Amino acid sequence: MDDKLMLMIPGPTPVPEKALLALAKSPIGHRSGDFTKVMADVTDRLKWLHQTKNEVLLLSASGTGAMEAGIINFLSKGDRVLVGENGKFGERWGEVCDAYGINAERIKAEWGKPLDPEDFRAKLEADTNKEIKAVIITHSETSTGVVNDLETINRHVKAHGALIMVDAVTSLGAMNVPIDAWELDVVASGSQKGYMIPPGLGFVAVGPKAWEAYKTADLPKYYLDLGAAKKAIAKNSTPFTTAVNMVMALQVSLQMMQEEGLEQIFARHARHRNATRAAIKAMGLSLFGPDDCASASITAVAPPESAPAEEIRAIMKKQYDIILAGGQSQLAGKIFRIGHLGFVCDRDILTAVSAIESALQQLGHNSFTPGAGTKAAIEVFSA
Amino acid sequence: MDDKLMLMIPGPTPVPEKALLALAKSPIGHRSGDFTKVMADVTDRLKWLHQTKNEVLLLSASGTGAMEAGIINFLSKGDRVLVGENGKFGERWGEVCDAYGINAERIKAEWGKPLDPEDFRAKLEADTNKEIKAVIITHSETSTGVVNDLETINRHVKAHGALIMVDAVTSLGAMNVPIDAWELDVVASGSQKGYMIPPGLGFVAVGPKAWEAYKTADLPKYYLDLGAAKKAIAKNSTPFTTAVNMVMALQVSLQMMQEEGLEQIFARHARHRNATRAAIKAMGLSLFGPDDCASASITAVAPPESAPAEEIRAIMKKQYDIILAGGQSQLAGKIFRIGHLGFVCDRDILTAVSAIESALQQLGHNSFTPGAGTKAAIEVFSA
Repeated sequence: MDDKLMLMIPGPTPVPEKALLALAKSPIGHRSGDFTKVMADVTDRLKWLHQTKNEVLLLSASGTGAMEAGIINFLSKGDRVLVGENGKFGERWGEVCDAYGINAERIKAEWGKPLDPEDFRAKLEADTNKEIKAVIITHSETSTGVVNDLETINRHVKAHGALIMVDAVTSLGAMNVPIDAWELDVVASGSQKGYMIPPGLGFVAVGPKAWEAYKTADLPKYYLDLGAAKKAIAKNSTPFTTAVNMVMALQVSLQMMQEEGLEQIFARHARHRNATRAAIKAMGLSLFGPDDCASASITAVAPPESAPAEEIRAIMKKQYDIILAGGQSQLAGKIFRIGHLGFVCDRDILTAVSAIESALQQLGHNSFTPGAGTKAAIEVFSA
Repeated sequence: MDDKLMLMIPGPTPVPEKALLALAKSPIGHRSGDFTKVMADVTDRLKWLHQTKNEVLLLSASGTGAMEAGIINFLSKGDRVLVGENGKFGERWGEVCDAYGINAERIKAEWGKPLDPEDFRAKLEADTNKEIKAVIITHSETSTGVVNDLETINRHVKAHGALIMVDAVTSLGAMNVPIDAWELDVVASGSQKGYMIPPGLGFVAVGPKAWEAYKTADLPKYYLDLGAAKKAIAKNSTPFTTAVNMVMALQVSLQMMQEEGLEQIFARHARHRNATRAAIKAMGLSLFGPDDCASASITAVAPPESAPAEEIRAIMKKQYDIILAGGQSQLAGKIFRIGHLGFVCDRDILTAVSAIESALQQLGHNSFTPGAGTKAAIEVFSA
């Protein structure tokens, strides 16, 4: 049905009407006093969301741009780093390192499985000369719905002394990423995820140890130079023209997030993960990735050959106007992914679950009683 | 008055309501079939606007990000280039070169004066070993309102064989930049200017000679890698999540521009320049920069000490809710700048002119009869 689309992909996520209306306001000058006030307010709220006193810098770029900035501003050519790789985004950060001549050693796990913190411990402990300058980790791997054990890996990194650089693109604002408590040096994210606004802004939180490394880091940068962004944010500004309308929408969504509260936001995402997984199991489908490392933002499902992922997605779109994500790269056609990240309420989970039940029935996957998935989700919500 | 702001700065520029409403639509997936159609349509229209058959690539970045991409994708470390510098933006492109280890020789002119094409001719003719790989020119220098003679400089570049890289940020969609006719290799621009939408998107048109140079260019890039953008645009996509709402607004504004027509758009901007300059002269104020190289997008004015630029701007804002731009860097406090770029009609020029007349009267600059500026503008419009 025209204009009736419901997004349940891991970004862009649904955007509250209030934020959309802020986006539609006539722009104001990015160097005006009025905008300076917006930036000051947004910066304070970003620090709250990031649980940090560190700078949180705002870039007019996607999450990839933000993460690239987070890597290249604090490293030099030839630096040795460890990159966790168990999905498309872990792979991407290795490619960024390659592009800049950073010596990136991949610590791999199968796609759909979490990284093993022991692999990092072993490499870091063996590095007695302290050659490893940074460890780069994707927290919630968007391509598989697997959460890596950032807390434990970070503990090993701390024991060694390297920088920890975190892709928190689908975890920030959905799962706990306590930057100051864990002393995370660099944390990157993007606006079209937990932030509940459209794509177009990237964020990088940078701690003091990373700024120390910035002083000697020699990789070339200009638009992505976070030192320039740091200098500007001290005056509540940005080095280059920022996406002012996006920032106005961000101000609204951050206000909404503060009203809800961090604990409540994390609990909501965890509840949606639990309800979705319970429902998928009740339909007799296989979850892609184990329960104990399941992302609160996204659930990946590996349906049987008799009910192919792409056919499920097609029915979901055609009959129910619900958009699910497919698999990426090697997982194309093998999984579908349900995004429950950002502006998603309990009702949306029931909606998606019941529509998936219908799609499975239509494809002849009828080893479960229709309603069983919905029942399982309701039970989680009633607990 | 609250919510009554009128922007007359060189970006962000006013945005048509239709484009604002498109911006406020719920986002759709950037990898969806629906968005692919939007991208295909937008790409066609961008080629029309750029008067080119070449690729026009879209980045989620500001104009600076687009221009940086336009420079670094086609050059290698140590390459010799000539950079025209007669304002803040020319200066910036030299800084980008410095950041990447490009050997940038500045060809300077006083701020407020145009670059001398003869300076380029001399350097290029002397370079018999063809060491100069590119010439980097700011077409309309936003900081001074001066237009550089791109056509003549480009002729000298063509005789030599170097690449020409053009910052067309405040000229594209306002003044004639016939990319194919002039064989311009790289042309960068940004959304908050002639495009009539808010900041957040950058554009780079790239010709075949530049793509040839891309093959051996060795500067590191990932987010700003235009090769990846070229590959993606062939499938009507982008390598990384694009700012989908901005692209939807862009589609609307490009439709509006096509309905108006290129010749009409250029004529409108020229008319607004002529009317504004005639009015400023009739008020007895000095224009910053000569008539024969005046930008059609922006008029810089150097008021007398008795009516300081910042006081004029303050009255304009406080009483008339009109925002003019101040001077940048060394010109701060010395000039004010009237933006008449993008979604600006004849009425807006009369409005701004009459308000400036009032501000000058209030500051005691009364050597002219109030209404004289308005009369001069009306005469241009009646011609």
